[in-house]
Amino acid sequence: MKKIIECVPNFSEGRDLSKIDKIVESFRGKSSVTLLDYQSDDNHNRMVATVIGEPNALKDSIISAIGVALDNIDLRVHKGQHPRMGAVDVVPFIPIKNISMDEAIELSKEVAESISKEYNLPVFLYEKSATRPERQNLSDIRQGQFEGMGEKLRLPDWNPDYGPSEVHPTGGVTAVGARMPLIAFNVNLDTNNPEIADNIAKKIRHSGGGLRYCKAIGVDVKDKGCVQVSMNLTDFTKTSIYTAFELIRIETRRFGINILGSEIVGLVPLEALTDTAAYYLGIEGFSLDQVLEYRIME
Amino acid sequence: MKKIIECVPNFSEGRDLSKIDKIVESFRGKSSVTLLDYQSDDNHNRMVATVIGEPNALKDSIISAIGVALDNIDLRVHKGQHPRMGAVDVVPFIPIKNISMDEAIELSKEVAESISKEYNLPVFLYEKSATRPERQNLSDIRQGQFEGMGEKLRLPDWNPDYGPSEVHPTGGVTAVGARMPLIAFNVNLDTNNPEIADNIAKKIRHSGGGLRYCKAIGVDVKDKGCVQVSMNLTDFTKTSIYTAFELIRIETRRFGINILGSEIVGLVPLEALTDTAAYYLGIEGFSLDQVLEYRIME
Repeated sequence: MKKIIECVPNFSEGRDLSKIDKIVESFRGKSSVTLLDYQSDDNHNRMVATVIGEPNALKDSIISAIGVALDNIDLRVHKGQHPRMGAVDVVPFIPIKNISMDEAIELSKEVAESISKEYNLPVFLYEKSATRPERQNLSDIRQGQFEGMGEKLRLPDWNPDYGPSEVHPTGGVTAVGARMPLIAFNVNLDTNNPEIADNIAKKIRHSGGGLRYCKAIGVDVKDKGCVQVSMNLTDFTKTSIYTAFELIRIETRRFGINILGSEIVGLVPLEALTDTAAYYLGIEGFSLDQVLEYRIME
Repeated sequence: MKKIIECVPNFSEGRDLSKIDKIVESFRGKSSVTLLDYQSDDNHNRMVATVIGEPNALKDSIISAIGVALDNIDLRVHKGQHPRMGAVDVVPFIPIKNISMDEAIELSKEVAESISKEYNLPVFLYEKSATRPERQNLSDIRQGQFEGMGEKLRLPDWNPDYGPSEVHPTGGVTAVGARMPLIAFNVNLDTNNPEIADNIAKKIRHSGGGLRYCKAIGVDVKDKGCVQVSMNLTDFTKTSIYTAFELIRIETRRFGINILGSEIVGLVPLEALTDTAAYYLGIEGFSLDQVLEYRIME
């Protein structure tokens, strides 16, 4: 059975299309690697690629793309709204099929070691690959950004997991790790009162006493004339889409409003949807192997 | 984008494992063909294979498997509970991905023509490929079974669509056609009264005034101590799983009972489940291309 893993590397170049093209070229025309998507943002000056494939082939293409990015991006002259510490800012690996989180962690470490040696780049392991709790969260690692990394790396607590304690002069520092797929799920409410969306978001998210793997904010969707609870579900196997949805429904009662509908932004793992269907239909003993299309990938 | 089509040929051999093995061998080790499953039944003396692949590769492997079956099965000595008219009884093609029903119909006709010539076999087109309304339904074509086919084929109304008007001496007659995927969906009720399941089944099925693409019967599930509405959904794009489920829920109220749970037997197309998830969550503008695993198949 083929192992499938996903990688969503973030590169600090969102404007120069010729450079972006050179970077994603590493993912094209490979036999066991598929470039699903890449999106660059002018304001953020950042490009995010979504690549999927067999572990070894994916690993090789990611290492090569990182090399191209380091050759083409100079962080000393980089400006953008999105915080960043590296030309290749962050490289998350996500297990998709026939592969465990432990294997994804192992792969992330191989990539981290390889790029640190090959490109003389300081690398932090983050999320599930983190070597200590204070390195799990990317924003903690990135605190200080490129400009502050030189000083940060000299602190005993911020010695990188791989590579030198010196910032790469043009490429900065990179975080590599394994994590669960992230689902961007938004629920629209039949009110235009932003306070209600904020209120419900606070109630359902982890930081407000809500669901463990749910991040949420209230958003005013002006073009639809409604407000929305905008969520990131960071582990759908533990915090299900339908759980978040039903919890929002419960909260709407307090305000005498209703749910208008919802949207999933970007990609979603098959299992998150089949699990939702199985919940509402009360399907017993359902297996992903019963999904026709899933079987084709074996 | 790769076109994917499914074929579920039914062979009249469910006992002799060496013969079954020879038949399914045609589906093994092919580059663009995958044997998902095959199940033989001693009582039915029948084997059903589920094969999926790219149209041309699948076509070739099906034609070759039919040849092997004709060489190995002698219907003159075949006995089993399941009605049959051919060594290769029926060969349905089901469009799965990036392929239209019209293309599946076209492919079924190519196979029908090819096997009629190559094996001197009378072939009827059925279901969506049928050339006249009275040939849509397989059971109408198969009426009379192998033993009665000699006489039937001489009737002007039952001249085969391809091949001779003479039954193949050992292989009989074969039906080939295109159809939608079929979903076997059962809903368990918290009662052991078989009349209630019968009653609900009659109410929700097409023949009883219910849903257009729903066949249903009541079944007594003795080992679970409950009864069940057992359904075949013959076009999930028009009669959705959740519609049948919610309609059963509505009917249970008449009897003051509840739904215990449900089960999907065998394979189910991805879209049938994502459509169900999208219904219950009210997802707007959802596309199958958002499903990570679906994208890998491109």
